[in-house]
Amino acid sequence: MAFDPLLLTTALATIGVLAAIFLIYNIRKYPTGTEKMVEVWKAIREGSNAYLKRQFKTITTIAIVIAVVIVLAFGGTVNFTYGGEIALSFLLGVAFSLFAAYVAMYSATNANVRTTAAAEKSTYEALRVATLGGGALGFVVISMSLLGLSLLYAVFGDPGVLAGFGFGASLAALFAQLGGGIFTKSADVGADLVGKVEENFPEDDPRNPAAIADNVGDNVGDEAGRGADLFESLTAENLGGMIIGLIVSIILFQGVSIYYVTMPLIVRSLGIVATFVGLAVAVAEKKFKNPIKPTRDGLLVASLVAGVLMFIATWYIFGPSRVTPQGTAAAAYALYGCMISGLVAGLLIVLYTEYYTGSESKSVITIAERSKSGPALTVMSGTSVGMISSGLPVITVAVALLTSFGLGQQFASSAGLGNPFLGGVYGTTMATMGMLSTAGIVLTMDGLGPIVDNAGGIAEMSGAPEQIRERIEPLDALGNTTKALTKGYAMGSAALASLLLFQAFVLEVARYQAKIFDLTAITSAQATQLGTQLSGLGASLALNHPDVIIGALIGSMLPFVFSGYTINAVAVGAYRVVEEVRRQLREVPGLREGKVKPDYAAAVDLSTRTALRLMVVPGAIAVLAPIIVGVVLGWASVGALVVGATLSAIPLAIMMMWGGAAMDNAKKYVEAGNLGGKNTETHAATVVGDTVGDPWKDTAGPSLHILIKLLNTISLVFIPLFLTALVVLGH
Amino acid sequence: MAFDPLLLTTALATIGVLAAIFLIYNIRKYPTGTEKMVEVWKAIREGSNAYLKRQFKTITTIAIVIAVVIVLAFGGTVNFTYGGEIALSFLLGVAFSLFAAYVAMYSATNANVRTTAAAEKSTYEALRVATLGGGALGFVVISMSLLGLSLLYAVFGDPGVLAGFGFGASLAALFAQLGGGIFTKSADVGADLVGKVEENFPEDDPRNPAAIADNVGDNVGDEAGRGADLFESLTAENLGGMIIGLIVSIILFQGVSIYYVTMPLIVRSLGIVATFVGLAVAVAEKKFKNPIKPTRDGLLVASLVAGVLMFIATWYIFGPSRVTPQGTAAAAYALYGCMISGLVAGLLIVLYTEYYTGSESKSVITIAERSKSGPALTVMSGTSVGMISSGLPVITVAVALLTSFGLGQQFASSAGLGNPFLGGVYGTTMATMGMLSTAGIVLTMDGLGPIVDNAGGIAEMSGAPEQIRERIEPLDALGNTTKALTKGYAMGSAALASLLLFQAFVLEVARYQAKIFDLTAITSAQATQLGTQLSGLGASLALNHPDVIIGALIGSMLPFVFSGYTINAVAVGAYRVVEEVRRQLREVPGLREGKVKPDYAAAVDLSTRTALRLMVVPGAIAVLAPIIVGVVLGWASVGALVVGATLSAIPLAIMMMWGGAAMDNAKKYVEAGNLGGKNTETHAATVVGDTVGDPWKDTAGPSLHILIKLLNTISLVFIPLFLTALVVLGH
Repeated sequence: MAFDPLLLTTALATIGVLAAIFLIYNIRKYPTGTEKMVEVWKAIREGSNAYLKRQFKTITTIAIVIAVVIVLAFGGTVNFTYGGEIALSFLLGVAFSLFAAYVAMYSATNANVRTTAAAEKSTYEALRVATLGGGALGFVVISMSLLGLSLLYAVFGDPGVLAGFGFGASLAALFAQLGGGIFTKSADVGADLVGKVEENFPEDDPRNPAAIADNVGDNVGDEAGRGADLFESLTAENLGGMIIGLIVSIILFQGVSIYYVTMPLIVRSLGIVATFVGLAVAVAEKKFKNPIKPTRDGLLVASLVAGVLMFIATWYIFGPSRVTPQGTAAAAYALYGCMISGLVAGLLIVLYTEYYTGSESKSVITIAERSKSGPALTVMSGTSVGMISSGLPVITVAVALLTSFGLGQQFASSAGLGNPFLGGVYGTTMATMGMLSTAGIVLTMDGLGPIVDNAGGIAEMSGAPEQIRERIEPLDALGNTTKALTKGYAMGSAALASLLLFQAFVLEVARYQAKIFDLTAITSAQATQLGTQLSGLGASLALNHPDVIIGALIGSMLPFVFSGYTINAVAVGAYRVVEEVRRQLREVPGLREGKVKPDYAAAVDLSTRTALRLMVVPGAIAVLAPIIVGVVLGWASVGALVVGATLSAIPLAIMMMWGGAAMDNAKKYVEAGNLGGKNTETHAATVVGDTVGDPWKDTAGPSLHILIKLLNTISLVFIPLFLTALVVLGH
Repeated sequence: MAFDPLLLTTALATIGVLAAIFLIYNIRKYPTGTEKMVEVWKAIREGSNAYLKRQFKTITTIAIVIAVVIVLAFGGTVNFTYGGEIALSFLLGVAFSLFAAYVAMYSATNANVRTTAAAEKSTYEALRVATLGGGALGFVVISMSLLGLSLLYAVFGDPGVLAGFGFGASLAALFAQLGGGIFTKSADVGADLVGKVEENFPEDDPRNPAAIADNVGDNVGDEAGRGADLFESLTAENLGGMIIGLIVSIILFQGVSIYYVTMPLIVRSLGIVATFVGLAVAVAEKKFKNPIKPTRDGLLVASLVAGVLMFIATWYIFGPSRVTPQGTAAAAYALYGCMISGLVAGLLIVLYTEYYTGSESKSVITIAERSKSGPALTVMSGTSVGMISSGLPVITVAVALLTSFGLGQQFASSAGLGNPFLGGVYGTTMATMGMLSTAGIVLTMDGLGPIVDNAGGIAEMSGAPEQIRERIEPLDALGNTTKALTKGYAMGSAALASLLLFQAFVLEVARYQAKIFDLTAITSAQATQLGTQLSGLGASLALNHPDVIIGALIGSMLPFVFSGYTINAVAVGAYRVVEEVRRQLREVPGLREGKVKPDYAAAVDLSTRTALRLMVVPGAIAVLAPIIVGVVLGWASVGALVVGATLSAIPLAIMMMWGGAAMDNAKKYVEAGNLGGKNTETHAATVVGDTVGDPWKDTAGPSLHILIKLLNTISLVFIPLFLTALVVLGH
């Protein structure tokens, strides 16, 4: 063995975590501004902490119940030791995920007021603080995921156990994103409906009793929620890649090739290096016209660095240097081509986001113009843009799959591996890794959004000088753009990851059927047996079989029902916040005139209770549906359920995220003075559109990424439970 | 052969067509009312005829181009004779479909004014005329489909040729529903946006320049469009059933069993008898409190009659009387159980519609109450209701599939047939037939909706006495309910039909691969070969193969892009109608006061041009996508594309149809005087919700049924083209 990949990945992951801590340490050295700013800031911070504490408590309780179920399920089907290992791995997944979410929020609630204060100097200084804050999110999320997987693999050496970690990460992420998403949009929509529509307050007006809740929402939804979301994305993708690498190497080499298994981790750790460089570039740029330029340059440089590093690693491991015995130059090129196809697909999806939702794009201007005929046409046009926009990303993902599968087959033939199908699957794994090699810098871009949003809120509520607010405004627009970009990117990668995990699921089913549990001593008979099992599984997964069709039908309906419940939760929460805000404005004399401070805590508390209560039903549907289907109809139906859910979730999520973002920007287009500007019927119509889109783009849409991967990880973890079914339909 | 099934089905189909003509003859004997009524009526009728003429011209042109393509495609792959037969069958499908649509509209445009006039006597008389008008739609649609298939099978004896008929029916339906749907909602939304929102005109106010266009829309969209829609549904389902019957009998008996093949036609012809009885019951009931009672009783009686007749037929053909040599009592019971599972599933879906969209349902009242906080919450709640409502129907369809597949396996074992899988597939065919046995009476219910809608419009615009209008109003509410019911039923049956056609597609691929073209002389070697091909196909359709995944990904995106374009078309059309209406109100003095008549023709013409122009892009996507994917990636990808499209279309269509209907009824709930009633902010909010839902429920939603079956029939027709692919990925 030429070098220990796990040593490299663990070391880089540790450096990444330290980098996040270092960034936060740096941020905390910036001044916190005026006393009034600090007062507003503290209210936001306290609300955020209080919410997160209660949310963590709920998630921990659910996790412990599930851990017990895991121990019992495995105790009954395999053995208790294995069950205990998986349960431990699961709890670690929850814990790491919540830790990453907490650090992300801690960084954001420290960076927000300091961004406001830095704006006293210049826009550049403010952007710098916010970017550092986003960078902390990027580093902690990517590194904690890598660290967890590296350590667990070093200890257990079994990707089956690691599936528990993925499940834990998905579960925590689902509830964090759901709860945070419901909170943030209840508060946001509630604040807007009374504030903007009825009372004509500007955004973040201190007289609005829901103003603090709105800013708390940015932290718990967009920062902690998104942190947990991407933590699980990265984990799930690496997990899927590792399982595929394992099975590929068992079938091809009758043993575990550490390089095939850990290649996904290696690519991820190179991403940490790329993030360093990208972040340095983004922070170094002091002169810019458009504040998007530094981060965009950071993204481009990081992509380049990742591209170069991936080539070196691929060449070293799969090239003629022969760290792996079958390496050839052609094999390395083919595998590298897979990574590039993923990288390019990711960048293309980012471009499409701009095309459909950019503030000057044709679709946004059309939505704004049609709004002259009232809010119904705003929503109609926004829905239509969202639906149409699902076309290009899906085709891009399809082409990336086609390309990387084809190149993977070439890899197999160049490296002299006998199984072109497995080569193709490994190729698609590498495409996913390529797409996610830039995840760190994309996360940074995403993380700065809520920070500048909060900074603007603090400036407004503390009555900061006009100049500060003017300097923060372009950053706010930047934050909206980067948030939309990340969501598209996250969806593209979720699509690839989900299909990857499904392949891993099929391979794991074959492994369980071949009864290969001890990975340290694989006989060639076992390897042959695994290959036979695998080629036999295809027929069970045929689209014309009733158990596949039924599983897929139920799966494709789940994202709709799930989204329906989350949107309903926002509607309920917003409705309650509206009632509360109206009550305060009605009952508290002097509030409307700004003489008395509103009871901010009431709205925070209301949103908290709504979010924690209403996240349970959609969460339970997500967890129970695959388990019930699997127990009743067996593993093929669960696999089909996961694929069906992925198939409908991708276009549905894009429709909601991009439709919502386009309506948001149509409102901003009018607010920039077009079509009559603020205080017109047209503006009011765009506000309605924006509000309808709010839960689409910030609650339901991003939760769908997590939903499909949660379904994937559940299917992976509970394979032993699904291998027999209550109802058996003949094939 | 004990009796000739085709003789029976042809005879009953002919009787059905005559019944439709007889009903129209009867309707035309009713008086047309006052001179003013006739004047309004003529304007509506002329607009409807003019639109339909232009639409038919466009569809015919497209159809001729496609017919040429078919001849060339088959000339190059099989031979020109076969290509000519399929092209002929295709053109007949288009012609029969357009004829059915025309008769449906002719009946409606004759019944509308006579319904208004009959309301002078009583609500009962009005309902009677409208029901007779709906009955004509029901009979002509169901009978023309049956007639076409029976005759073509009698002449060619090859379900492969019949696939051309199905493709023709789907193509005509797609454009008829798209064009009609865009027309009706452009006019409706345009009329409402200015009329109700800006000018505070009531519905169908004669001062509204878009009032005639709105009523024309009911005829060309809801009547002609829906007629073509259901014509193709019934055709596609019978076609799929016949193909499955054919292949099942070839594999099991080494020959064509006319009973297996024509059983779907037999069940359909029994449905004609059930419709007679149901309609007679509905028309006979003279005393009722709620006008829904007569039609609902008609539905129940028709269901009962269909249930009894199906039992007799099944017993006679598959029971111990042994018309088919393998008949046993247990076999007949099992097959009958399949039919009942379908029948019950259909009735359940009708119940769910009521539960989610009924005017007194909890979800509708919730939407109305949340509207107190503005239109954003109306739309949010409506979307949420629509999304959640997709759960129960999908589960019901899944359970019906599971049950009928299981019973079909039992049928196979009871009848001593060797292949339980094919028995299961035949069982699901029978479930679909069972669900659709009541199609005639459901169509009648659907058809009366636009007639009473028009009757109300004519009463309003002709200034008929208050009493007449009051008598029509409850019928209008009835029409809304029955329309929503039919759409749910149509979606449920489309889901089953689409999966049926997919099974037929797989079987036909096997037949082409086994090179069985002459169905009159099948050797036992060929039959064995077919069985072998079929069991080998499963592996090619495995969900973990890249060509399947890629096809399914693209397929699942299509319904979204397609819906996006249709909703956009309505937004464009409505926007233009709004501009035109505003222009007339601004430029024509005396119009607003009712002294001058508006230029109705301008709005009709605008809607016509928008509809015909904007139906082309979504139509082209639907036709080209499967052909391109099939040529590039091969037959398995097309099959996966069709399944992917079905999977995402079902919940998406339900979301749009039921979400839209719920918002419509929330508006009606407020208009009935609840929550402050008309002329309140709450009412304005529900009007926005209703408008957003309009293209969902009447344009995009119902078009999706057709889309998925069009994809199915295209995949069936072009199999020879797809059997080789440009890009081949190894398995």
